[in-house]
Amino acid sequence: MEVIHDLVGYQGRKIVQNTEWFSFSLDSVLLARFVRVLPRMKNILDLGTGNAPIPLILSLQTKAHITAVEIQPDVCQLARKSVSLNHLEEQITVLEYDMMDLKEKYNSDTFDLITMNPPYFPYHDTSFLNMDIHKTIARHEIRMNLKDMLPIVRYLLKNNGSFAMVHRVDRFMEILSLLQYYHLEPKRIQFIYPKKCENANLFLIEAVKNGKTGMTVLSPLIIHEADGSYTEHVKEFFM
Amino acid sequence: MEVIHDLVGYQGRKIVQNTEWFSFSLDSVLLARFVRVLPRMKNILDLGTGNAPIPLILSLQTKAHITAVEIQPDVCQLARKSVSLNHLEEQITVLEYDMMDLKEKYNSDTFDLITMNPPYFPYHDTSFLNMDIHKTIARHEIRMNLKDMLPIVRYLLKNNGSFAMVHRVDRFMEILSLLQYYHLEPKRIQFIYPKKCENANLFLIEAVKNGKTGMTVLSPLIIHEADGSYTEHVKEFFM
Repeated sequence: MEVIHDLVGYQGRKIVQNTEWFSFSLDSVLLARFVRVLPRMKNILDLGTGNAPIPLILSLQTKAHITAVEIQPDVCQLARKSVSLNHLEEQITVLEYDMMDLKEKYNSDTFDLITMNPPYFPYHDTSFLNMDIHKTIARHEIRMNLKDMLPIVRYLLKNNGSFAMVHRVDRFMEILSLLQYYHLEPKRIQFIYPKKCENANLFLIEAVKNGKTGMTVLSPLIIHEADGSYTEHVKEFFM
Repeated sequence: MEVIHDLVGYQGRKIVQNTEWFSFSLDSVLLARFVRVLPRMKNILDLGTGNAPIPLILSLQTKAHITAVEIQPDVCQLARKSVSLNHLEEQITVLEYDMMDLKEKYNSDTFDLITMNPPYFPYHDTSFLNMDIHKTIARHEIRMNLKDMLPIVRYLLKNNGSFAMVHRVDRFMEILSLLQYYHLEPKRIQFIYPKKCENANLFLIEAVKNGKTGMTVLSPLIIHEADGSYTEHVKEFFM
């Protein structure tokens, strides 16, 4: 079922969801709030945009043009409806495209900022795959994997451009190695802890193309209080 | 001035300090509490032990023999006095030795666990060095540096043995790269935040020689409340 939700806290922004497929995740909101959008940035790319939560939030803090790439045609339709509902057609372009082919579409050094909330799970033949193809593509590395994607991110980014991503901690070491291999230098990391006394499960990372070494680990981002309610920190993201 | 302090919370353990040189740091306590001492471990090494706070705390949770290496003769004397005061001569051996030469003293694959609270700052000719030689050696990489030390750690560790260290976040990427280069696989990391809303300044890391990949980021370790008092988390380490 297709429904329109308010993106609560985001100045009346609305987002179109299909409740049978998936809803935008808290992770996308956390990524959109983590990333630094600088005044000099003119051209932003969101990879695997889904129903476009990241572009919808970023559009509140920048006038830069945002290209939102999504491979699934019906998900693209949701994203386009959201963009149109918010009258953002001038600022946000939804592009139905396989991100693995973006090198053919764009020159190198095109974007100031690239964001991505990627599929979290590697794809193996033996992976338990969700039966719904929309969820499966969003969660498993079927249509892209990081190792193939990062050289494309590097190609598309301007020198000193930023790449920001959210991912699972169990892939932290692999991701750091890959980023460094492609000279995307990690500059800011924030770990996300489900509760104060629990291990981190996710992390946010911002890397700079050909950036200098020197990294900051931001204050811990704790999602839930002991009783399961959202922490004040998270509530602030929706006020 | 030489004084005897209670290691509060550690079952009457006492530690001898020289107030003009340095005192054992909270960082050493955090490292001693972070590291996992397993029943199978028989042989532990603490590198750059200072006045031996780490061996004194570890001795409460293991019967393993602990070798405490310190290069400065007068600091060694403090460590020996502490060991003797606690009647731990059987369990803890204080060794006046340059850790860079330990390969000449020990066979490979000798230790189950190696701990180190190393000097935090790289040594450059232009470094501002503390005038007191004791503090200078403890804080700056004059007598050892990580790049030279890690192959020695690797040599001394048994296969699947653990190496645990505390260090500054601004050297996090460099340290991860070095550990992986020497096949010391990071398994557990804990970030230390001065306050809940501040960036991490230190991290604790445990790596396993030839260990499998797969890493955990433990719950955040926050040192101070907003009013500057210690958090309950830290107070528990001294109760």
